[in-house]
Formats: sequence, C-alpha cells, structure tokens
Amino acid sequence: EALLAEAAEPGAPARPCPCPLPSGDTALSRLVRRLLSARRSLDLCLFSFSCPQLARAVQLLHRRGVRVRLVTDAQYMGLHGSQIGRLRHAGIQVRHDQHSGYMHHKFAIVDRRMLITGSLNWTTQAIQSNRENVLVVEDAEYVKAFQDEFERIWEEYNPANYSFFPQRR
Amino acid sequence: EALLAEAAEPGAPARPCPCPLPSGDTALSRLVRRLLSARRSLDLCLFSFSCPQLARAVQLLHRRGVRVRLVTDAQYMGLHGSQIGRLRHAGIQVRHDQHSGYMHHKFAIVDRRMLITGSLNWTTQAIQSNRENVLVVEDAEYVKAFQDEFERIWEEYNPANYSFFPQRR
Repeated sequence: EALLAEAAEPGAPARPCPCPLPSGDTALSRLVRRLLSARRSLDLCLFSFSCPQLARAVQLLHRRGVRVRLVTDAQYMGLHGSQIGRLRHAGIQVRHDQHSGYMHHKFAIVDRRMLITGSLNWTTQAIQSNRENVLVVEDAEYVKAFQDEFERIWEEYNPANYSFFPQRR
Repeated sequence: EALLAEAAEPGAPARPCPCPLPSGDTALSRLVRRLLSARRSLDLCLFSFSCPQLARAVQLLHRRGVRVRLVTDAQYMGLHGSQIGRLRHAGIQVRHDQHSGYMHHKFAIVDRRMLITGSLNWTTQAIQSNRENVLVVEDAEYVKAFQDEFERIWEEYNPANYSFFPQRR
C-alpha cells in the first residue's frame, strides 16, 4: 500500500499503511515493484484477477500512459471479487476467450523485456494462503515465446471474432 | 501412448495407438519424453494430477528404479479421477499439505538438472482444452531455487509432522 501511495503521489510523504497485511519486503510488494517499473507497455494474460492491490497498480500504470492490454478467462472474469470490471471501467482494454476450456495462463510482460510467470493467479487467496511460484525472466528467448503467445491470443480474442450466436453458425 | 509402450518394452514393435488423441509430436508427447529421460530422480510438486498417460510415465520411471518423490495438494488428491491413489498403490512416496490454502505449484525436476514448470496442472482437461504454458529450464540458478523449495516442502510435509487431531494442540 505504501508503494502504491508513493507511486500515485510522488514526493508526498509515505504514510504508514493501516491494513493488516505484512508490510515491508513481501512477495506481493516485490511483484508490485516490478509492475510499476513499466514505462511503455504492460501485457497481462491472467486466468483469474481479484487482488485489489495488483488491480490498483495496473490502473496506476494505465493513468500514467503505459499501454496496458489484458487477456483473461471468460468464465472467471465475472466471478465475485473479480477486478476485471473495474479495470474495464477505468478504460483498460480487456479481451477474453470464448472456449469451454480455460485461458489458464498467468503471466505479465513489462515493456516487452521482462516476463513474470508462474503458478500464481492474481487473487488474494493465492497471495495470502497458497504455496506458489513466480519466475521473473529477462532472457530474450523466453520473453519472446510468451510475447508471441500473447500477440496470438490478443488477435484470436479480438471482439470482431466473437460469435454471439454460436448456435446459428 | 506409442512412446509409453516403447519405453515399457524396449525393442517391441510400436503399435499404433487406438486412442482418439492426436498422435505424433504433441505437447503431451514432448512432456512425456522429457520425463522419460530421467535416470536417477524425479521430484514432482503438483497441485492436481489426473492425467493417466503422465501417471503411467511416472510409474514406469519408478519401476525402472528412478527415485520418484511426489508432493501434492490435500484437497485435490482425493477428487474423482485423481491418479495419486494409483501412484501410492504402486509404491511411490507421496506427501501432501495440511493447509486450507492450496499447494498450487505445478513443477517437476528431472535428475536435479531439468526444471519443468508453468501454468499446466497435470490433468486431461488442462492438456486437451486449456490455454497453458510449460517452461523447460536447465539454468542451474532456476533449477536450484525450485529444488530448494521442493526439499523445504518435502520436509515440512513429512508425515511425522502431520497433526491428526489439530483441535487437541
């Protein structure tokens, strides 16, 4: 929270966070810090997104002019607590699948150069209670593979391709 | 299936597979091939494991004398279709968490030198229907981080530490 407050109002004195979450150097704060390092683009491919702190970091980047694109799973985006509606409302471009299978990726690419991927869904339950892993990779070979997958999905899930009445096709 | 048949009976003629799955070079066959390359050890840390082909590959390695250790999630290991019981029955060592949170990792380490990790749960649904990623990494730095996490979990989930009557403690 202190990180987000500081990023939102640079120069303002950091206020101590009133929330009961552990403060200081946590896995969540390290993840937020990596995200906030974005200067040009943030590509997100997330099965499930309900963590308010991460949603605020993404909104902040969007307000700063970073180009944010978000791909998510159609079945999970409407669940209680999902942040997808809030992010759409803020003007962030969101696309989703139309499959019965899941869009089960959980990765982010910062400025087309840093890949953040792993087992972690961006949910409060996962961050607070689960055993998870997150890899941060800057090797061009890995980043390119995930960036290519992102671009494929982004095109495939273009709303122009949505079929609203699949039974008529 | 052809890969598994060939690995089970080296020298026997490969029979064409009668199953309706795509044959040839699929993501599943590539994953099976990496697993079957194990000579000494296979450490598995899997949230959910219901794919019969992958279970057969693991059993085969166990029969060959490869040291297989498996960590899984307590809430998911008893679900319909789970392969955990079958693997235990075959004599493979299995340990699980006792948390309300999930043991949500999905990684394998072959011979302490090759890390296989990503978004993929080892389920038929995930393999056939979902959009998933699997990273195969041999960089010692990454492999070590996951191997260390595996050893930590393996000790933490030692049955000697299970609390069968938590309310009495």
